[in-house]
Amino acid sequence: MSKTNIAIDAMGGDNAPNSVIDGLAISFIRHPETHFIIYGDKSKIAPLMKNKKELIPVCTLIDVKNSIKDDEKASKTLRKMEPTSMSMAIECVSSGKADAIVSGGNSGALMALSIFGLKRILGINRPAMAAVMPTKIGEVIALDLGANVECSTQNLLEFALLGVIFAQKVLGKPEPRLGLLNVGEEENKGKQIINEAANYILNSQLAPFFKGYVEGNKIVLGDYDVVVCDGFSGNIMLKTAEGTADLCTYFMRQVLSSNLFGKLAYFFGRSSFSALRDKLDPRKHNGAVLLGLNGIVVKSHGGTDALGFAHAVDLAVDMAEGGYNSAISSEIEKLKLKENNL
Amino acid sequence: MSKTNIAIDAMGGDNAPNSVIDGLAISFIRHPETHFIIYGDKSKIAPLMKNKKELIPVCTLIDVKNSIKDDEKASKTLRKMEPTSMSMAIECVSSGKADAIVSGGNSGALMALSIFGLKRILGINRPAMAAVMPTKIGEVIALDLGANVECSTQNLLEFALLGVIFAQKVLGKPEPRLGLLNVGEEENKGKQIINEAANYILNSQLAPFFKGYVEGNKIVLGDYDVVVCDGFSGNIMLKTAEGTADLCTYFMRQVLSSNLFGKLAYFFGRSSFSALRDKLDPRKHNGAVLLGLNGIVVKSHGGTDALGFAHAVDLAVDMAEGGYNSAISSEIEKLKLKENNL
Repeated sequence: MSKTNIAIDAMGGDNAPNSVIDGLAISFIRHPETHFIIYGDKSKIAPLMKNKKELIPVCTLIDVKNSIKDDEKASKTLRKMEPTSMSMAIECVSSGKADAIVSGGNSGALMALSIFGLKRILGINRPAMAAVMPTKIGEVIALDLGANVECSTQNLLEFALLGVIFAQKVLGKPEPRLGLLNVGEEENKGKQIINEAANYILNSQLAPFFKGYVEGNKIVLGDYDVVVCDGFSGNIMLKTAEGTADLCTYFMRQVLSSNLFGKLAYFFGRSSFSALRDKLDPRKHNGAVLLGLNGIVVKSHGGTDALGFAHAVDLAVDMAEGGYNSAISSEIEKLKLKENNL
Repeated sequence: MSKTNIAIDAMGGDNAPNSVIDGLAISFIRHPETHFIIYGDKSKIAPLMKNKKELIPVCTLIDVKNSIKDDEKASKTLRKMEPTSMSMAIECVSSGKADAIVSGGNSGALMALSIFGLKRILGINRPAMAAVMPTKIGEVIALDLGANVECSTQNLLEFALLGVIFAQKVLGKPEPRLGLLNVGEEENKGKQIINEAANYILNSQLAPFFKGYVEGNKIVLGDYDVVVCDGFSGNIMLKTAEGTADLCTYFMRQVLSSNLFGKLAYFFGRSSFSALRDKLDPRKHNGAVLLGLNGIVVKSHGGTDALGFAHAVDLAVDMAEGGYNSAISSEIEKLKLKENNL
């Protein structure tokens, strides 16, 4: 296998470029063979790299003075003439020099620039935002999580394909169990568009993987490897899960500091609680992925730290090395053939 | 104030009628002035009441042999000629003998029979399913949670009114902060129907309460007292929150039994953990409410126990004594007047 190259937007995110460089140092230990092409302000990045000498042989640093602001509108970003750390990192992928880009910057801009710069895979009408979420017994990939607020049946079918191949190539599930997010498990429940999508899936090569409708409370049970939904519902689901996990840890902290017994419990349980924090740690699941483009795009959470950024880089490396995008291209052809038989 | 009368479907729910009668005994302590009109199989209920002698003076037991099965289709229920414990309890409200009905039975049947039997409040096009959810600092009422999978802008406006008055009359918030569930907080974000609903609200008497769009992760912060959404998104939100809270407690149990220190922590923290369980206890938030009908309908979770059922009864009593339905009727008139000015 040729060396994997990952383009890094070093200027995106609240703690950039520090969290980015520290994150790369963590990723380097896990993927010492990977090459990083870092885009950003050299005057800020070079001093940070002095403390991470191990990175120097595996990094190329490209000086870009401009970066995209967190609150900048995507439409403005697209009209911009001067290159930015984000746009140049994307160009690095579109030109074939890198397999993937990782950025913790402005989501809207990243999506707009990625679609514009990388173009959609032939046969995919809309790229989807996906993320890996924890379950009681493992992980599940959910999509779309907000890239497409309104979706057609065809979009949902394509998301199913993007998700199934992700589960196969990245999560290591050769026969992923696919579900459609709905408000009930019975046939004909919920929206018409979802009932139609179920029919489309049953008439495609995805049929053997389809396990039916899944409700919001059942996702965590681990009965599904892929959950497909429109971007509006997916965003509500993802953010509600984040908020509720946050509420639970908040309540836990509260009770453990409320009285002497709580404090004693905390004293004895320190390591157990840190294991629990680990399980609920959003940084361990950091990295939303934009699927369906000619190139791998990983969005790291803007507020994450080095550990979170490293996880996003890991995801990009896993996708590149798992051959995600080439698998999509070959499967999408079959999807079209079946579709014509509908 | 005249005595509050609550009609009880004693045969609905997995543990009925035991959990129902035990639940009434708990509610009786909190509301000794309330009168309960219990519908169900006398041969099963009377022996249970022998052990709850305190209930006898505040209960009327009406013998109904038939009850609705959990998996029965709502359409079949409506065609049924013979009375059931649920249909007779609803009739008790429609005839004015009771202020509210509480049932732990089949949700679809309860909704269908309630709409058919109680009719919508004049000016409300669609009743909504609502529930009170916990936040970091208190509670929030969210609606619709699944009664209406597809919604119009007008429906969302009406839900906002139903929710605001609930917050005022039941949660004790004279100036409730109202939010519309969306995928971003900026104006023009998300679905057109939500942007339109925001405009409708800003042109109604609800304008002073409207605080904008709320994302799924922000609901728990306690910045809103009322969150309005279509029934599809609301169902996804509610169930995802349930599932995630369940996942958190599952992980917590796992780490507390994983090693000696975890077990020691549990030993010292027993009371703290039981306080935490209390905060996350779904029974403490049991009781979805069907709003917008001529009568108060509270749906207790089918799988709940006596404590959960008692909470659902408390909610019914609070709504009846808070004058929820009469407040709706007077506010809906104003909503119509403003609406005509749009």
